[in-house]
Amino acid sequence: MIVLAMAAAHSSNRMLKDAIFEANQACMDAMAVHGADAVTNATIGVVLDEEGKLAVLPTMEKVYRSLAMSELAAYAPIVGLPDYLNSVIDLTFADNKPEAHFSAIATAGGTGAIHHAIANYAERGEAVLTSDWFWGNYNVICVETGKRLETFTLFDEGQNFNIADFKNKVDELLKKQDSLLIILNTPAHNPTGFALSESDWDAVLDIVKPYTTSKGKRISILVDIAYIDFAGEKNETRKFMRKFSNLPENLFVMISFSMSKSYTLYGQRTGALVAVSSSKAVVDEFNQVGKYSNRAIWSNVNRGAQALLVKLQQDKTTYAAFEHERQELYNLVQSRANIFVNEAKQCGLNFLPYKGGFFIAVPAKDPAAICNKLHDELVFAVPLKLGIRVAACSVSLDKMKGIAAKMKAAFDKCNKA
Amino acid sequence: MIVLAMAAAHSSNRMLKDAIFEANQACMDAMAVHGADAVTNATIGVVLDEEGKLAVLPTMEKVYRSLAMSELAAYAPIVGLPDYLNSVIDLTFADNKPEAHFSAIATAGGTGAIHHAIANYAERGEAVLTSDWFWGNYNVICVETGKRLETFTLFDEGQNFNIADFKNKVDELLKKQDSLLIILNTPAHNPTGFALSESDWDAVLDIVKPYTTSKGKRISILVDIAYIDFAGEKNETRKFMRKFSNLPENLFVMISFSMSKSYTLYGQRTGALVAVSSSKAVVDEFNQVGKYSNRAIWSNVNRGAQALLVKLQQDKTTYAAFEHERQELYNLVQSRANIFVNEAKQCGLNFLPYKGGFFIAVPAKDPAAICNKLHDELVFAVPLKLGIRVAACSVSLDKMKGIAAKMKAAFDKCNKA
Repeated sequence: MIVLAMAAAHSSNRMLKDAIFEANQACMDAMAVHGADAVTNATIGVVLDEEGKLAVLPTMEKVYRSLAMSELAAYAPIVGLPDYLNSVIDLTFADNKPEAHFSAIATAGGTGAIHHAIANYAERGEAVLTSDWFWGNYNVICVETGKRLETFTLFDEGQNFNIADFKNKVDELLKKQDSLLIILNTPAHNPTGFALSESDWDAVLDIVKPYTTSKGKRISILVDIAYIDFAGEKNETRKFMRKFSNLPENLFVMISFSMSKSYTLYGQRTGALVAVSSSKAVVDEFNQVGKYSNRAIWSNVNRGAQALLVKLQQDKTTYAAFEHERQELYNLVQSRANIFVNEAKQCGLNFLPYKGGFFIAVPAKDPAAICNKLHDELVFAVPLKLGIRVAACSVSLDKMKGIAAKMKAAFDKCNKA
Repeated sequence: MIVLAMAAAHSSNRMLKDAIFEANQACMDAMAVHGADAVTNATIGVVLDEEGKLAVLPTMEKVYRSLAMSELAAYAPIVGLPDYLNSVIDLTFADNKPEAHFSAIATAGGTGAIHHAIANYAERGEAVLTSDWFWGNYNVICVETGKRLETFTLFDEGQNFNIADFKNKVDELLKKQDSLLIILNTPAHNPTGFALSESDWDAVLDIVKPYTTSKGKRISILVDIAYIDFAGEKNETRKFMRKFSNLPENLFVMISFSMSKSYTLYGQRTGALVAVSSSKAVVDEFNQVGKYSNRAIWSNVNRGAQALLVKLQQDKTTYAAFEHERQELYNLVQSRANIFVNEAKQCGLNFLPYKGGFFIAVPAKDPAAICNKLHDELVFAVPLKLGIRVAACSVSLDKMKGIAAKMKAAFDKCNKA
């Protein structure tokens, strides 16, 4: 007897396409042949130091190493350690707490936070809205949870935030569905490095607010701030959060917090989903559904990493030292990005408006062809659907030099061919 | 405008009932009044030492402390570190590998493994089958993933495995649905400490196998072995796994592996789902859907804990030392359980057949009433639906003495009332 599938009908044909893994594998293969020094790996999404090693912030390590084994080994409460959740809320907003009710739920990394928002704040079978340049995992989470991802065009012709298309898509979807979850990854958007300006945020809120007076409409905005601490000055990059003051009750804001990038603790899988609402009832419901999802999916979240954040944040001197180290790491990433940006301008390579973060994006009609052509120069980047992702976080200053020109040449060759 | 709910329709009315938390809270309140020494807390589901502190196995701690920070901080591959997955398979079966294809996917704890099995191996809206004494979270996971939990009666009148009712329920469900996921938590079942015997397992397989010749029927068995290393000798407790050799292709076995209890690393949230099938295609599909779920839900799993297991298991001397320490911890838990079991027999308190593990269960018509009565004696246990759960894992030898008699007295008082 031949059995084609044992998995459930909704799962069995799911197949993860992993462009980043494939690009990285191609790079590893090239390194094996040509040696690591000759090859540039612009595929990796973590900060590496100038020697190509994972950058781990020393004060974070010191505090982590000081944790008692019982703190590392014991279960955490289902929703997270109370002190962790308080620290998360303080760190999320810095001095920009809006007038609102808050809550937070510990999650398995930023991914877990986004998962919970999509799982619990979009109706089954309905659309979740994000920009056409997006972290591919948003779509994977939508499929896993039985939702559908739709996109608006992120940039207009002047490479500004495309307010008109955002409005079109919101209008279109809210004709068809009463509930809408919108995901905005800002500042330091993955993969472009773009950030919504203060006036972009005003436009976004002005577009969705009129719907809140319609009976039964429910709008949620998830702000993915995974890269925020590599986007600029703490309070400058968080200023937009003040706009979440006194929103209508049926306009709900969630913010996904991640320790991966901001604390160089990627592999410990610790994050949180933060809720902001003018309604206590909405926040209570958030706690209730988040607790349920936590219990059902991972029972509770890595206690050690939670304890680390608390210990790190509660001692002002320690946290100041940590922030100083992180600032230096941010400066390093920014310097690498600046090399690419300046060289791209010089050689006339079009790239998307980079304002900070781990990645720079170059739009392309056939990203795979350009990336393949770049392999001749032993430069490896990630071909996405709409263009090429270059990792400023992981390419050393020295190796970053010349990438833009090589990419421009690859475009020229592909155009000729 | 009044908004009742912002969450999606399928989520908004979910409310976690947490009997364990409530019982533990009542105990904490009593400790605040009477002092910790006067109070017995039999609600906690982790091994505490005789002083009431979390038991952490020293060799595990030593190895954990030896991990490089990069190993703790880096992302793991989506499906897990390859060496971790190999270690998991070796540790799951010990010397009892069936003739079959294997695979494993790292998950966030044992809960994550059970989540993936239910999410991907039961059809939406259909029933998952487990015993009527069950870990309550199975139901939470079913609700979260849009499935339904149904139960068979675990014990017959002689307190043996109720083969007849298992068969009834399998027959009944397979009349209505083509696919069936069966969850068996054995050995050291939570909350009874029961284990299926070799002949119980033969009966289970004899009941489901005839269905595999029917066109389109797909049967999956998830064996939850969270407590297996507190159930007896390594290969004795795993002997049943040999029965998974050369099963029909449409009878798929999954085993949920957890580092929580077996490695005293509860809070690091690291486990795995192991696949056993005579069909390579079924295992390939398992890898594919598991990878998809991992990426969608938590992206990847705690790398540090994975690296720990590899380092611990790959050095034979280290692992032998670790196993010796764990054996001592098992002996301690078993000694505590023996006190209860012997005293219960002496005073005529009926309890379910305990063969090992963290918990002993006492059937009761009104578990809450018995537990409340026990509070007068400053003994705190967990009232479940069908009875009372007593934690042998966390009550010291000294405090365990007399609990059975106090419980018997509570039953007698409640019966009189």
